Amino acid sequence: MTIMTEQQRTIALIVYPGMTPLDLVGPLQVLSGLAALDSRFRVALVAENTDPMPTDSLLRVCADHVFDQVPDPYAVIVPGGMAPTMRAMTDEKLQEYLRDTAPGAHLMGSVCTGSLVLGAAGLLTGREATSHWAFLPLLAGFGATPVRRRWVEDGPVLTAAGVAAGIDMALHLVATLAGAEAARRVQLVIEYDPEPPLGPLDWETADTAAFAPSLPEYALREGLREHPELRARLAAHLSTPV
Amino acid sequence: MTIMTEQQRTIALIVYPGMTPLDLVGPLQVLSGLAALDSRFRVALVAENTDPMPTDSLLRVCADHVFDQVPDPYAVIVPGGMAPTMRAMTDEKLQEYLRDTAPGAHLMGSVCTGSLVLGAAGLLTGREATSHWAFLPLLAGFGATPVRRRWVEDGPVLTAAGVAAGIDMALHLVATLAGAEAARRVQLVIEYDPEPPLGPLDWETADTAAFAPSLPEYALREGLREHPELRARLAAHLSTPV
Repeated sequence: MTIMTEQQRTIALIVYPGMTPLDLVGPLQVLSGLAALDSRFRVALVAENTDPMPTDSLLRVCADHVFDQVPDPYAVIVPGGMAPTMRAMTDEKLQEYLRDTAPGAHLMGSVCTGSLVLGAAGLLTGREATSHWAFLPLLAGFGATPVRRRWVEDGPVLTAAGVAAGIDMALHLVATLAGAEAARRVQLVIEYDPEPPLGPLDWETADTAAFAPSLPEYALREGLREHPELRARLAAHLSTPV
Repeated sequence: MTIMTEQQRTIALIVYPGMTPLDLVGPLQVLSGLAALDSRFRVALVAENTDPMPTDSLLRVCADHVFDQVPDPYAVIVPGGMAPTMRAMTDEKLQEYLRDTAPGAHLMGSVCTGSLVLGAAGLLTGREATSHWAFLPLLAGFGATPVRRRWVEDGPVLTAAGVAAGIDMALHLVATLAGAEAARRVQLVIEYDPEPPLGPLDWETADTAAFAPSLPEYALREGLREHPELRARLAAHLSTPV
């Protein structure tokens, strides 16, 4: 039985309108398993409000805490998405929460393009980081060094690659926080024993041209209509190979 | 651009209180990718109502259709969970929806213990099916043959193993419905290139005794308090190795 105490370390998963639901729910599922096994940890879903929020699928989701209720998280994880995530780079309340909590947090993390939201808060300057493959070059616009890897740790910053990578990153985090045995138990309960029916991604033959650079171009254009300078700064890196 | 037409095939993902969120969101993410690529398909999140519903994590989620609004789905997929999913086996409105839609549906599917909800609707009799590893023997209580596999197809019934297996099953479904190239594109967009940090599950050494049979015993006891006969019928299979 989990007992809530002042000493519990809160892992805050950020919820904002239009994000990609698997970016949130992958880590949520893994970290809820951690909290069930190890009462030193708890999870909070933190947002500007707790009303139903749209995602970029048909699902609407509700956070269970507002920003002010979780002022001292142990860790913060920002999910990604497309145009709405570009908008989140200029969402003052979200950006303020990230800037306010980062100095006291043990870890600032992201899934997919959530790393750009961390970058906009100034948290990636001089650090290695990753993101969704199609958006990876944009990280350079925030002074980060983009790295193609499933997840990247640099000091207190832990960033994951696109969407589904949040599951792998969260299991890595469980192993770091509570040990390999805890991570194995969580993996067993959620039966994470992947068998992609067509095998793993083959980056040599994958049709990346179908999505890049058109997908990030579209997301930047839609998401940063009112922020042309930021849009131009990031778009300038789109053609840089990583 | 997706155009909604009468001819569109609707894939109905069932939402009910207390289910495991990744069981829903894994397939949702994959099948939303299918709908974005191929306008012959659309996704609907179908429930008794569209109010925020609890899951077995802190997240609350909202469906976007009620049962009556999706009377003729092309496919139905039921997510799983623990005690609340055992309750869903006796949820008359949900069971009625499954029984009413199955005859006209091309496919009835499930993730994790969602297969027990299909079983309760009489849809697994004489068929091979799978489920979360710890609950797998219970399928025999509905006249099904339990099979340990990532996903199992038997006629119009497609069942997946526990929680994360819904992603693999949904990609298989995309490949079946729209071809391997479509499935590869969806896989690329959601960057499903799994790297479990501790490797795949090792079933020889996994601590299954930590969860089975205690987990299904608890779920049956909590979920079927008012249905002792069904509980006894299913529990009788718990000690049968699969």
